[in-house]
Amino acid sequence: MVDLTVVFLGTSSAVPTRDRGLSSVAVRRGSELMIFDAGEGVQRNLLNAGLGLNKETRIFITHMHGDHSIGVLGILQSMSMYDRSKPVHVFGPKGIIEFIKENMRLLGFGLTYELYVKEVREGVVVRTDDYVIKACLAEHTSTDYAYLLEEFPRSGVFYPEKATGFGIPKEKWGVLQDGRNVKYRGRIFKPSDVAGPPRPGRKIGISGDTRPIKKLAKFFKNADLLIFDSTFGDDQSELAVERYHSTAKEAAELAEKAGVKKLVLTHFSSRYKDVTPLVEQARTIHKDTIAAEDMLRITVPYPDGEQSNQ
Amino acid sequence: MVDLTVVFLGTSSAVPTRDRGLSSVAVRRGSELMIFDAGEGVQRNLLNAGLGLNKETRIFITHMHGDHSIGVLGILQSMSMYDRSKPVHVFGPKGIIEFIKENMRLLGFGLTYELYVKEVREGVVVRTDDYVIKACLAEHTSTDYAYLLEEFPRSGVFYPEKATGFGIPKEKWGVLQDGRNVKYRGRIFKPSDVAGPPRPGRKIGISGDTRPIKKLAKFFKNADLLIFDSTFGDDQSELAVERYHSTAKEAAELAEKAGVKKLVLTHFSSRYKDVTPLVEQARTIHKDTIAAEDMLRITVPYPDGEQSNQ
Repeated sequence: MVDLTVVFLGTSSAVPTRDRGLSSVAVRRGSELMIFDAGEGVQRNLLNAGLGLNKETRIFITHMHGDHSIGVLGILQSMSMYDRSKPVHVFGPKGIIEFIKENMRLLGFGLTYELYVKEVREGVVVRTDDYVIKACLAEHTSTDYAYLLEEFPRSGVFYPEKATGFGIPKEKWGVLQDGRNVKYRGRIFKPSDVAGPPRPGRKIGISGDTRPIKKLAKFFKNADLLIFDSTFGDDQSELAVERYHSTAKEAAELAEKAGVKKLVLTHFSSRYKDVTPLVEQARTIHKDTIAAEDMLRITVPYPDGEQSNQ
Repeated sequence: MVDLTVVFLGTSSAVPTRDRGLSSVAVRRGSELMIFDAGEGVQRNLLNAGLGLNKETRIFITHMHGDHSIGVLGILQSMSMYDRSKPVHVFGPKGIIEFIKENMRLLGFGLTYELYVKEVREGVVVRTDDYVIKACLAEHTSTDYAYLLEEFPRSGVFYPEKATGFGIPKEKWGVLQDGRNVKYRGRIFKPSDVAGPPRPGRKIGISGDTRPIKKLAKFFKNADLLIFDSTFGDDQSELAVERYHSTAKEAAELAEKAGVKKLVLTHFSSRYKDVTPLVEQARTIHKDTIAAEDMLRITVPYPDGEQSNQ
């Protein structure tokens, strides 16, 4: 069981308000930190959220608008101020490399660590032993990539009585629990001999700024948590089309179509002091919907209901 | 009487802390807003301070380090989001034009208003009917300009009984009060005929990041309020030299030499959770010293003690 917790660092659209900072969502998975979008002010919100700047960190930018990207500079710079030595990876659409490189030159800052910046394309962006992160081209006024964090299936439930029954000594159990075969007294034991079927991992989707296009419903299929552009309410559905955003209800329709478990609305236009009506509009379509707010934390359970440790 | 109020928007050095944002000081003079430095997050602090983004605004950057300049981008961009039409002026050292121009290109944002960006040199940077703003080259690792806001003298105290004595009709008094001559019944009356001597205006100095060099003591001569780099305490005086900053005590020595009234220490290293010792160190040299904190407001009185209206 690995803890998977989402922390909303900024939930406003375009301009910050007193209550909401500019776009950013942190996903903490075990000891790793993933940051999706980094609007201005994010490094301070990371501090306030107790997430710090010294974890293994990957930053994913959905699109190059300033309210989603400017905060990268402060994060990278402050990491150097803290003498970070671990490498940092930044992913984003075309332009992200030049943005960082030019600003390092213009602001005259160097780094104490290796920085890898990559312009992404659709498909797998990151693959580790435990999960992949995929990108999917969304539909906004600027090239926007939606991201999906997808954990690989975990080993099935281990049955000690079966292992004991076969006479496999305890010191070999861990290998089987890790999903590998064990050879013992001339016989090969497979994990399926002593454990149930592999259990699915968790999926978290992040839309960035986008219209609720069909391909995203496919991309976010069966996500446990979907964080989706809900800039507008029903009252501004035309503006949502015009500005290539989504309404809360459109986000819910997409979540429903995708078979998503929990939907979190975010990126609210500053015109909505109270977003309750937007949540209500969405809930008429997709019941398990909530509104993001700055510093909201959500721990994502495994699909089979197992809760990760905090 | 024109209100002159200083609001500290960010008082931390290099990296933000939970309590202190990155460098910025707002000076509100009547209906005008001047912003000295704009670290990341300043646009939100402007909102929080109730200063807004639609005033007549001039932004002055002391030096191009990111913790003093990145916030300019968000301010300029959000002003467009709010459909601002009034022009904006930005002043800074060499590099400020390219920084703004390149980021507008890289982030793909346009403006709804005229933007004038100027690379300053030593001397007068802005001159209005009421004040000048001057720049002075300081001494830091990056080209740093200290700024001085200097009001022109106001008219002297007006004596109605003298005007009445000369038989000057009341409708002409305003002209004399504005410091201009009045011709009445063939005789020319000067302001000095009906008013006391001109009264000095106010002076506010802002150092940016710098060593406490001699020329700054001259530049800030007799300032009513001096906001000075106090990154370190006595415990880190060698680091202050090495990194081209000042200690609180050095700031006080400079203030004392310059005959400054009130000294405000700012730009504290994040190592000082409590800056009381720094204030105490400074007060051994210059008694009227306080520490800046985020959202601190100081209304600057006229040198003759007259308090402006809030």
